[in-house]
Amino acid sequence: MKVKKSDNGFKVFVKDKEILNHTKNSPCLFAGKGCAIYDMHKGNFKIKDCLIEKVGLKDFKITDRKKQIKILFSFNGLYVFEIMLKEAEKRVIINFVKSPEGVNRIWFRINAKEEEHVYGCGEQFSYFDLRGKSFPLWVSEQGIGRNKNTYTTFMADKCDKAGGDYYTTFYPQPTFISSEKYFCHVNDSSYMNFDFSHQDFHELEIWGVPDKIIIGVGKTYLEVLENLTALLGRQPEMPDWIYQGVILGVQGGTQIALNKYRKALEKGVKVNALWAQDWVGKKITSFGKRIFRNWVWDSLMYPGLDVEIKKLNKEGVKFLGYINPQLLKGSLLFKEASRKGCIIKNREGSDYLIDAGEFDVGIVDLTNPKAFDWYKEIIKKNMIEFGLSGWMADFGEYLPTDAVLYSKINAEKAHNLWPTLWAKLNRAAIEETDKLGEILYFMRSGYSGTGRYNTMTFAGDQNVDWSLDDSLASVIPAALSLGMSGMGLHHSDIGGYTTIFGMKRSKELLMRWIEMAVFTPMMRTHEGNRPEDNWQFDSDDETLLFLAKMSIIFTKLAPYIKEAVKENSNKGTPVMRPLFIHYENDKKTYDIKYEYLLGRDLLVAPVYESGKDRWKVYLPKDNWIYLWNGTKFNGGEIEVEAPIGKIPVFYRKSSKYEDLFKEIAKLSILSVNQRTTNN
Amino acid sequence: MKVKKSDNGFKVFVKDKEILNHTKNSPCLFAGKGCAIYDMHKGNFKIKDCLIEKVGLKDFKITDRKKQIKILFSFNGLYVFEIMLKEAEKRVIINFVKSPEGVNRIWFRINAKEEEHVYGCGEQFSYFDLRGKSFPLWVSEQGIGRNKNTYTTFMADKCDKAGGDYYTTFYPQPTFISSEKYFCHVNDSSYMNFDFSHQDFHELEIWGVPDKIIIGVGKTYLEVLENLTALLGRQPEMPDWIYQGVILGVQGGTQIALNKYRKALEKGVKVNALWAQDWVGKKITSFGKRIFRNWVWDSLMYPGLDVEIKKLNKEGVKFLGYINPQLLKGSLLFKEASRKGCIIKNREGSDYLIDAGEFDVGIVDLTNPKAFDWYKEIIKKNMIEFGLSGWMADFGEYLPTDAVLYSKINAEKAHNLWPTLWAKLNRAAIEETDKLGEILYFMRSGYSGTGRYNTMTFAGDQNVDWSLDDSLASVIPAALSLGMSGMGLHHSDIGGYTTIFGMKRSKELLMRWIEMAVFTPMMRTHEGNRPEDNWQFDSDDETLLFLAKMSIIFTKLAPYIKEAVKENSNKGTPVMRPLFIHYENDKKTYDIKYEYLLGRDLLVAPVYESGKDRWKVYLPKDNWIYLWNGTKFNGGEIEVEAPIGKIPVFYRKSSKYEDLFKEIAKLSILSVNQRTTNN
Repeated sequence: MKVKKSDNGFKVFVKDKEILNHTKNSPCLFAGKGCAIYDMHKGNFKIKDCLIEKVGLKDFKITDRKKQIKILFSFNGLYVFEIMLKEAEKRVIINFVKSPEGVNRIWFRINAKEEEHVYGCGEQFSYFDLRGKSFPLWVSEQGIGRNKNTYTTFMADKCDKAGGDYYTTFYPQPTFISSEKYFCHVNDSSYMNFDFSHQDFHELEIWGVPDKIIIGVGKTYLEVLENLTALLGRQPEMPDWIYQGVILGVQGGTQIALNKYRKALEKGVKVNALWAQDWVGKKITSFGKRIFRNWVWDSLMYPGLDVEIKKLNKEGVKFLGYINPQLLKGSLLFKEASRKGCIIKNREGSDYLIDAGEFDVGIVDLTNPKAFDWYKEIIKKNMIEFGLSGWMADFGEYLPTDAVLYSKINAEKAHNLWPTLWAKLNRAAIEETDKLGEILYFMRSGYSGTGRYNTMTFAGDQNVDWSLDDSLASVIPAALSLGMSGMGLHHSDIGGYTTIFGMKRSKELLMRWIEMAVFTPMMRTHEGNRPEDNWQFDSDDETLLFLAKMSIIFTKLAPYIKEAVKENSNKGTPVMRPLFIHYENDKKTYDIKYEYLLGRDLLVAPVYESGKDRWKVYLPKDNWIYLWNGTKFNGGEIEVEAPIGKIPVFYRKSSKYEDLFKEIAKLSILSVNQRTTNN
Repeated sequence: MKVKKSDNGFKVFVKDKEILNHTKNSPCLFAGKGCAIYDMHKGNFKIKDCLIEKVGLKDFKITDRKKQIKILFSFNGLYVFEIMLKEAEKRVIINFVKSPEGVNRIWFRINAKEEEHVYGCGEQFSYFDLRGKSFPLWVSEQGIGRNKNTYTTFMADKCDKAGGDYYTTFYPQPTFISSEKYFCHVNDSSYMNFDFSHQDFHELEIWGVPDKIIIGVGKTYLEVLENLTALLGRQPEMPDWIYQGVILGVQGGTQIALNKYRKALEKGVKVNALWAQDWVGKKITSFGKRIFRNWVWDSLMYPGLDVEIKKLNKEGVKFLGYINPQLLKGSLLFKEASRKGCIIKNREGSDYLIDAGEFDVGIVDLTNPKAFDWYKEIIKKNMIEFGLSGWMADFGEYLPTDAVLYSKINAEKAHNLWPTLWAKLNRAAIEETDKLGEILYFMRSGYSGTGRYNTMTFAGDQNVDWSLDDSLASVIPAALSLGMSGMGLHHSDIGGYTTIFGMKRSKELLMRWIEMAVFTPMMRTHEGNRPEDNWQFDSDDETLLFLAKMSIIFTKLAPYIKEAVKENSNKGTPVMRPLFIHYENDKKTYDIKYEYLLGRDLLVAPVYESGKDRWKVYLPKDNWIYLWNGTKFNGGEIEVEAPIGKIPVFYRKSSKYEDLFKEIAKLSILSVNQRTTNN
């Protein structure tokens, strides 16, 4: 860390990177006061600021003690901020030691270069390189369609304020990695807006004064990621059974679930688990089948499930369930929680009821240790003890900003923290029953710290169409940006989920999604919110046989994926990686958002458009072998045959897994009708 | 004017109305710096501010010299503003005498009451009472659909960024009238946003420091309007021929125009003028037929027009044309203007070319006296001398903010001024040829001062559908809000204009629009941008006969309307008036936006929905007679029969025009098929 002072300002360097560039005309710190208006509708937010004051803290006084620099910022003697920069190994911690009373907005500017690229900010579905746009960071529903120019988004906005936009995400995070090879992380949970649209600076708008901002560097992107994940926490390795097949999303009761399982087995599908989100029963709404939010086995809908789980386990097949932090108003658990004071309160002191779409729910107050423990025990007893080997730990986005919480923390600040508390609770339940490495739960919501607890991310609710911003394509930048934020385990609902406004999932979409899922750390199907409108894995024999082949390939890949997962666990190198982290000198790789590396040796370029049997791929310079036919490439823009079942995947000739990849290529000869494009 | 000081602040009263309420915690003046980004697409704007600084000028020092109060505002000795309040008769002028260099944003807060109503801000199509919302004031296209929840707006946004919103308008104005019986006018042309959503204050955000803000009061609304129009200017009376029939919008050439005229005459339509917007020729685009922007009679398309105009004039029928401040790239006038340096320039110093939708145009630089005079002479020679008795003086919204102008005025500030310069030019051409009172031009665009020059406003481009925000209904609040801004002459294209996204104008819509136009100061039909998709006045005999009857009623009303127009001219009482200005004690009248008074004695409640033959009307307490059948009402919510041809209209029993109204009632017996609802 170095400071260079001039009459008019100063610069701060971290390992020769110019991080701050302060001048009187363009200060690096602004402060102000505002009053936010949050309008929530079923997890979708409209957020507006009434800004009362904003000033540039142009005046400064620096005390430089080498590894510790104190800067007093002010504006004509007012708005005095004391900032302390401390150097730790490969990091500089910017501590906000003192700030003026009443100030609840700051704008912090990090130096930027015009040609710089920026990645991260949690899970971003529309953009991977964030340069040129601004990203509000607020945990919320990710929206339906997520593009104001699409009919789907228009309808979702009109009918339910639910269309979303390019930045709406379940899992934002105030963390980015610059192509200047540093990360920047803001240690705070207020609403923020990271604006990467300015030429000379990145502006971090924070609706609160953070306790610190951390800058970390590395010689390579791998080092930067290692540094970042050392700070924020890494994910554990996954249970072995995850690699042993596909998790079948089933619904409707014991017999239906078992029948689907048997049918899949008959056709040769490698099944490692059944996942029944409606194990607690269901509620029919106009949106589709919704889960009955009372976290107890529904023995009427799933008779004998307790016994069947044991039988399945003996066959090496797990059974997974579902939970979220909400309780259906009037349900037994709701009543118990209410009686115990475990539900978040409104300002009048009653249980805060949230409209969840044709029914109301209460949210368990995770800031209340009693509520936290009570809910954790429910997971232990009703889920783990019952025999579940995992579950979707859904939601986490719905904390209203005007809720009153047990811990007295302001709900505006608690809102973004909720997913992390929720992840922590699930993790604690597993650890306290000593099941880490056996049980896996998967979450869609997240924020800073979620990656420390969560065992797997799923991409949430994609549409069952082909839209770029909200379907198959979008989960690729989602995985990559999340990886660049320190969460390296990611998968998605195979086939998408949201079925609305006349959408129907086609056979082609389902198959393209299946073949992509093979090259992710976990395969799991989902029927969608309106199963009858969607093509399912068992809708015909061809699909079942296709899934069988794909699941076999997935299980063959196990040792390779497992190594990547281990690397993620040890060093924070995500399983699905952007190309540039291994090919940093190739400028073109920085713009690629729909291709990725799976581990070090596989390059995957999923086909995300309908009706294609060829596909264009960019390969960085290396010795690549096209997985399915052994063709060699040295890099550049190429085009390959990519009929359904042959997702463009390339391996490095130098890979120690070459034999494994060759074996997989042979498996592909299994006959599958490659002409299938639509049902 | 009175000031009351306290330790913590002060209040300013104008005739016992508390106008300013300044405290240290809630100052009445904020100042700051910002940098605006204007993104224009064919007259539609996306405007964003990058706000750099904003402070509340809490500190104050008052020097009170009775009729002159000096206030020094500052923020801890910084941001020193000198404001001088001077009392003139019924007005207080707030002069911004000194302001700090670099400050280009102010927020000025006028005291507000919770139950207060606010009107004006120029021509507002979606809201009449503006309380509760904020209104950006920027001259622009008004948008297609103007409601983000409609399919039309969605499509217009998607295809052409042209959907608009509730506040988009051709004719904004930084002027409002409060139900506290004062007006407030900001004497500036910067971008502004008037925010009426706060409980205790109205916040006027101004992207510049105005030279003054003027508050004017009156004992009645009529007095307030008189006061306001004395300041801003009033409109002249209209030529007599306007009252003598309907102006037929015709297109396509001399013969087509004359044939339409003869056919109308045959069916008994009172025609006072033909209006051919394509008298200069046309250009076919995907949007429809567009006008050839070279302002010279097209003698190929309109052969013999010079002679025909003389013949028509002898029959007492006028001929009207069209002009706008743009010149088609490559046209003769464009070349001349370019040669003479009469076109606005870009930053490189070349003619600034604007995309007008499949063709480019240059804008005449109205700040250049040479260009102004040159264009004025074109109107005199090519239009007046040619024999036109009027024209649509279209556009005025397209000045790009990065244009370079002859006068050196910043285009950001000139943008809103453009319509006024355009109105001034047209008015000058008429006055210099001594034709005021004979010639009438009509404009859609406007801003402060336009009302001083313009001879008639038209509502611009409504859709040919039944939408509330962009069709028949919307022109009612448009007329009323404009009246409350000091422009009291308003009419609209009969039948609407914009025909897009599968819309077709129905017979019913055309008839409802015709019957409404009878009760406005001027009747003029328009074929729309895609005439073949629209029902026209001559599409069948029934429609022609209907128009005949309606035009007869209109001509009968002439003495009554003429008196109202004279009142507008003398006192600024608009011809179409909100109910509350004559019934100020009736609280319900303040919320009515789809009814109006035409002059003092007629109450008009247009039917703006399809398929209706009855209509609900609110009548303030008075002795009302239902025009069509003589039924008496004393006020309140009533329902009347309102088949097509019998628009709900009531007259006051005490009216001196009672006999005239009775005569009109008799005319209504002329048989018209009342069952017609659609073509």
